[in-house]
Amino acid sequence: MSESTITSHTVRAYDTELEILGRKIAEMGGIAEKMLADAMDALTDLDRDLAIRTVENDPRLDLLQRDIEEQAILTIAKRQPLAVDLREIIATIRISGDLERVGDLAKNIAKRAIKLSTEMRIPRALIGLKSMHETASLLLKDVLDAYALRDAERARAVWTRDAELDALEDSVFRDLLTFMMEDPRNISFCTHLLFCSKNIERIGDHSTNIAETVVYLVTGETLPTERPKGRPDLSDFSTTVSA
Amino acid sequence: MSESTITSHTVRAYDTELEILGRKIAEMGGIAEKMLADAMDALTDLDRDLAIRTVENDPRLDLLQRDIEEQAILTIAKRQPLAVDLREIIATIRISGDLERVGDLAKNIAKRAIKLSTEMRIPRALIGLKSMHETASLLLKDVLDAYALRDAERARAVWTRDAELDALEDSVFRDLLTFMMEDPRNISFCTHLLFCSKNIERIGDHSTNIAETVVYLVTGETLPTERPKGRPDLSDFSTTVSA
Repeated sequence: MSESTITSHTVRAYDTELEILGRKIAEMGGIAEKMLADAMDALTDLDRDLAIRTVENDPRLDLLQRDIEEQAILTIAKRQPLAVDLREIIATIRISGDLERVGDLAKNIAKRAIKLSTEMRIPRALIGLKSMHETASLLLKDVLDAYALRDAERARAVWTRDAELDALEDSVFRDLLTFMMEDPRNISFCTHLLFCSKNIERIGDHSTNIAETVVYLVTGETLPTERPKGRPDLSDFSTTVSA
Repeated sequence: MSESTITSHTVRAYDTELEILGRKIAEMGGIAEKMLADAMDALTDLDRDLAIRTVENDPRLDLLQRDIEEQAILTIAKRQPLAVDLREIIATIRISGDLERVGDLAKNIAKRAIKLSTEMRIPRALIGLKSMHETASLLLKDVLDAYALRDAERARAVWTRDAELDALEDSVFRDLLTFMMEDPRNISFCTHLLFCSKNIERIGDHSTNIAETVVYLVTGETLPTERPKGRPDLSDFSTTVSA
C-alpha cells in the first residue's frame, strides 16, 4: 500500500468520525425540539400521559451527550487534529452539552405539567407562556439550522433575537404576579408557571450559547460575553449561561 | 541527549500541565464558594454594594473555565494520554463547567439581592433559605475537598446528602407559598426568594455532578443516573443536571 493510500484512508476514517458526531448532534437537536413541544402541549392541555412520556425521553439525550463527548475526546487523542478540525470537535462537545440542558429544562416543564394536572387551570395565565414557547422553539430551530448549514449569520441573528424572549419573560412575570395578587387561589398554579417561564427563557440562553459556538466554529471568533437584553433593567431576570 | 532524558522531560512537562489544571480548578472552587457566601449575605442584609461586587466577580469564573477547557483539549491533542490520564483531564473539563454554573447561580441570587434592596424585607421568609445555603455550601466545600484529595468515599457522601437540600427546598417552597397567601403584599418579595431557593437547590445538583466526576476520576465507575431524592413526590422540583 502506498503512503498516499494510507493517508487518504486515514483522512476518510477521520471524516467519517466527524460526520457521525454531526449526525448525533442533529439527533439530539430533534429530540430536544420534540421534548420542548410535547412539554408545552402537556402543560397547556394538562395532559398527564404526554408529560410522563416527555420525562421518559430525557435519558436518551443524556446518553447521546455522553456518547458524543467520549467519541469527540477519543478523536482528539487519536488524530491530533489541526486547529480548524479541533474547532469542529470542540463545537460538538459544547453543543451537545447545551442540547442536553435544553432537554432537562423541557423535562422540568413536563414534570410541572404532571404536578398541575390535578389543579384548576387558569387559561389566561398560559397565553404569555405560549408566546414565549413559540419564540424559544423558533430560536432553537434556527440555531440548529445554522449549525447544520455552518451559517454564522443565521447564528448571529439568533444571538441577537434572544432579547425578545427576555422581554416576553418580563411581561409574563408581571402578568403572573398580577393574577396572584388578584386571587390567592391562583398563587400555587401561577408559581409553577413562573418556573416554567424561567425554564423557557433558559432554553433561549442555551440557543444563544449554541449560536456562539456556531460563530466560533465557522469564523474562529468569540462573541462578546454581554448579549443585548430586551428589557430596561433586567439584571434580576437574566441568566447568562456559558457553553 | 539520551532517549530516556527526553522521555522523563516530556513526562515532567505533562505532569506540570495536569498540576496547572488542578490548581485552576481549586481557584475556580474558591471563587465559586465566595460568590455563593457573598450573594447570600447580600440577600439577607439587602446589601446592594456587596451584591454588585458579587456579580462583577462572575466573568473571572467564565474566563477560567474557557482557559481550562482550552488547555485540557490542547493537552489531549499533544500528549495522546492513556485512559487513566485522560480521565484526569476530562474531569477538569467537567468540573470547571459545573463550577462556572455554580458561579452563574450565585450571580443570579446577587442580582435578585440588588433588585430587592429597595423592597420591604420579610425576615422570617429568609430563615429557610439560610438553612438551604448552609447545606449547599457544605456540599460544595466537601466535594471540592473530595476532588483535591481524590477521595471517592467523600464524593459519594455528597452525592447522597444532596437529598437533604431537596427536602429543604420543598419546605421553603411551602413556607413561601403560605406567606404569599397570608398577605398579597408579600407576593413580590417571596417570588424572588422562590427563585433564589431554586438557584441554591441547583448549586446542590452541580455539587453532585462534581461528586459523580470525582468517583469516575478515582474509580473509573459511573454512578447511576438517578440519585436518592429527599422528598415523597418531588418530581416537580427536581432538576437533574448532567456534568
